[in-house]
Amino acid sequence: MSDDESTIRDLVLRWAAAVHAGDLDGVLADHTEDLVAFDVPPPDDGVRGLDAYRGIWPPFFQWQRSGAVFEVVELSVTAGVDVAWAYALLRCGTAADLAAHPSNRLRLTLGLCREGGGWRVAHEHHSFPLR
Amino acid sequence: MSDDESTIRDLVLRWAAAVHAGDLDGVLADHTEDLVAFDVPPPDDGVRGLDAYRGIWPPFFQWQRSGAVFEVVELSVTAGVDVAWAYALLRCGTAADLAAHPSNRLRLTLGLCREGGGWRVAHEHHSFPLR
Repeated sequence: MSDDESTIRDLVLRWAAAVHAGDLDGVLADHTEDLVAFDVPPPDDGVRGLDAYRGIWPPFFQWQRSGAVFEVVELSVTAGVDVAWAYALLRCGTAADLAAHPSNRLRLTLGLCREGGGWRVAHEHHSFPLR
Repeated sequence: MSDDESTIRDLVLRWAAAVHAGDLDGVLADHTEDLVAFDVPPPDDGVRGLDAYRGIWPPFFQWQRSGAVFEVVELSVTAGVDVAWAYALLRCGTAADLAAHPSNRLRLTLGLCREGGGWRVAHEHHSFPLR
């Protein structure tokens, strides 16, 4: 694994830990001002910009605090010289959700750009398989 | 727009046209053997490899032939030296689907790598917003 892949892997795992912990600053720490995120629910054309992205988290944090998990079970990073992408599969749900459907996964894809000395997330796509 | 961004933009639009036309060779033309795709439906852990990816299309082509559209309404490409990603929003549905919910969008994210002289898709993520 290259140093960049390792750096991005750590970034994604820190982000996931911050999501589970309800740490808003941690969730936003490595994102661009103009990111475009396709979240699980609407808006249909995506969440545009860091302010809008900030707004999606409080209700999700409340749900996590009700006893839900947010656990990365697979993470793959492809890092180039200046652009990278990553995908991950996560266990995400309450104990009841996971008991009812143990194999269900949140699918996550990230698009990143090198900025200064580090990497920033400029695109995110979150979804569950549609049954 | 850089030459690489223009090349990838053309690749995605060719792929979308092939999806709508039911042209399986066209759909597969620019993908890696080991791609990982998160399709709208299960499998929960994704579609792994080109043979599995080939298998998802015949039922989708049949649905497109019933009168569904597959139209790119927004496409953004971020291309680096050797790695790139893109996201797109598409109108995707039958006339009845689109009449019932005009703003609904298929969200598409692609992860690409430069191979030889061209670009190949190594990751795809397709989803609709979950209501």
